[in-house]
Amino acid sequence: MKIQEIISSIKITDQKWINLFRVQYVNSKDKLCSWIFASRKEDPYGNKSPDAVVLVVTVNTPTGRKLVVTKEYRAPIDDYEYGFPAGLIDPGMTVDETVAKELKEETGLDLVSIGDKSNQVFSSAGLSDESVIMVFVEAEGELSGKYQESTEDIEAFLYDIDDIRELLSSDKKVGAKGWGVLYYYSQIGKI
Amino acid sequence: MKIQEIISSIKITDQKWINLFRVQYVNSKDKLCSWIFASRKEDPYGNKSPDAVVLVVTVNTPTGRKLVVTKEYRAPIDDYEYGFPAGLIDPGMTVDETVAKELKEETGLDLVSIGDKSNQVFSSAGLSDESVIMVFVEAEGELSGKYQESTEDIEAFLYDIDDIRELLSSDKKVGAKGWGVLYYYSQIGKI
Repeated sequence: MKIQEIISSIKITDQKWINLFRVQYVNSKDKLCSWIFASRKEDPYGNKSPDAVVLVVTVNTPTGRKLVVTKEYRAPIDDYEYGFPAGLIDPGMTVDETVAKELKEETGLDLVSIGDKSNQVFSSAGLSDESVIMVFVEAEGELSGKYQESTEDIEAFLYDIDDIRELLSSDKKVGAKGWGVLYYYSQIGKI
Repeated sequence: MKIQEIISSIKITDQKWINLFRVQYVNSKDKLCSWIFASRKEDPYGNKSPDAVVLVVTVNTPTGRKLVVTKEYRAPIDDYEYGFPAGLIDPGMTVDETVAKELKEETGLDLVSIGDKSNQVFSSAGLSDESVIMVFVEAEGELSGKYQESTEDIEAFLYDIDDIRELLSSDKKVGAKGWGVLYYYSQIGKI
């Protein structure tokens, strides 16, 4: 039973890609609370669809099964983030269409098949309403950066188990949606 | 080799807990890019320490080994998020001190031992600089909500493998830092 109640929600900035919202709500202890969060949406409470897809991509190669790991420059951390190919779901696009598009753009690989999909996974629900669908994907072809948009700065790699374990034991910065899946492969010892 | 360069960074809002920052940078293709992101910090580029800890808590019980899963109301999504106990690292607190404090506050459990810790894991590095350390923890005692702060609305549960699989196959909303670890346990079939 949900007993909290949203009293008011106001967009307090006017930016193109991301804005802050101030919300007042009554919590389950009958206390009036105020919260500020960031959203990519114009109407976060009206539009609860996932923002993006994150792709767990495996590829059969002559030297064994590999996992696609991306290294992407991220301005908010002024550093490279290691993670998985991902992309926003544009209006009118389905999850599956976005998977094929982002796979090609960010890695150059071709889609073979789409496997399991997660439920709606939230990046940091105290900070933002941003959510993604995790999608397991089988791909083929050659890695290539030539399909990237000009603002993107993404390098894709084919990782084996040793590469995954080395990444997780390094001080490199890893994306949260990737970390648990990388941990899973590192623990079971195969891809 | 990092070849991007931050040209300017401006805090464009003046809120207490979270603000927007506008950054201009030159990317690796020599293109001038602009980006807006959210941060909990006053100086995101000067202070790169992790924001929070996320606890993967296991407990030995008479009916087997269980994983602590939390259900927490989150105003940004006006819904419950399923995930793990977590908390911001207050200034002057170490990761280990925060682990013990948040474990008690959010679950009522007592710390037995601290195991592996992750590298710095980023919630959504395109949207925010927010990062956490994932910490594996062994705990004991009884679940209790009585140590929570008044604004918190968190219920903790002891999940077995069936509970984890049921959660992942439901339409419930799961936090990104928890999802991969839950996936890991669901796949290996034991806690």
